[in-house]
Amino acid sequence: MPDFHPLASPSPAFRPACELCREAGGVLVFQSAHWRVIRAEDAAFPAFYRVVWRAHVAEWSDLTLAEQAAMMGAVGAVERVLRDALAPTKINLASLGNVVPHLHWHVIARFDWDSHFPAPVWAAAAREVVPAPVTRLRTGLDELDARVARAVAALAPAA
Amino acid sequence: MPDFHPLASPSPAFRPACELCREAGGVLVFQSAHWRVIRAEDAAFPAFYRVVWRAHVAEWSDLTLAEQAAMMGAVGAVERVLRDALAPTKINLASLGNVVPHLHWHVIARFDWDSHFPAPVWAAAAREVVPAPVTRLRTGLDELDARVARAVAALAPAA
Repeated sequence: MPDFHPLASPSPAFRPACELCREAGGVLVFQSAHWRVIRAEDAAFPAFYRVVWRAHVAEWSDLTLAEQAAMMGAVGAVERVLRDALAPTKINLASLGNVVPHLHWHVIARFDWDSHFPAPVWAAAAREVVPAPVTRLRTGLDELDARVARAVAALAPAA
Repeated sequence: MPDFHPLASPSPAFRPACELCREAGGVLVFQSAHWRVIRAEDAAFPAFYRVVWRAHVAEWSDLTLAEQAAMMGAVGAVERVLRDALAPTKINLASLGNVVPHLHWHVIARFDWDSHFPAPVWAAAAREVVPAPVTRLRTGLDELDARVARAVAALAPAA
């Protein structure tokens, strides 16, 4: 896995108090000059990735149309890998940021057996899942990370 | 408000069992040939819109890149109106579809005083909000709908 490279500080695009400015925020899978892909390390939802904008902006509409297209290209590439590798019941996408208002997209593979399905991952759990969800994926996380990295590397050079 | 025009049936893009194929799904604000904007009529989150793809597809990555750009253009336009008209604490965007797997984007204006903030709208409520949230918006819903309709009408002809 690559090392995380935060933006140089001081910069208006780097906020020292923001955890997504300071830290990768998960397993760093790939970083370009403008965004990175991390895996969230959520035991209940093992195939949970995030596409994080590198500079500190709060809202999707703070990006230019070209930046939006670049970021959604990465979101779409991650989604496509999850669909191809895992055949999930559904993909969930979200940009919320109420707690950490630094633009990031959640890309989550959902399964009809997961702890919350069909509710969103932020709702109350509906069931306990034993054995661990990660053991039920048809593709291991190392292989999944590698496939995600390859897919998004086709969109932008590594930075 | 316009009348809802479902796709002609039978068509592989029209699923009679799908409520977002059959019905507008809320207050219809604007419809183009390929997507429509509705307001969700959620009392807790009055400034809650959805951009719904007209044809029945389940996943974001089922769209072509051009279709994705068109749909996200509408999402961004709605977001921008909500920011300008309401100055919300945060915008929340999501495409989930676990219950109704017909591609639609939620665009929700969130406020630090709303019933769930900072949790997602799908989590448990944190507080009761009295008086009703709609009375706290600086722009009324009719005016908001009209502004949303004008903004997205600039992107595609009405259908």
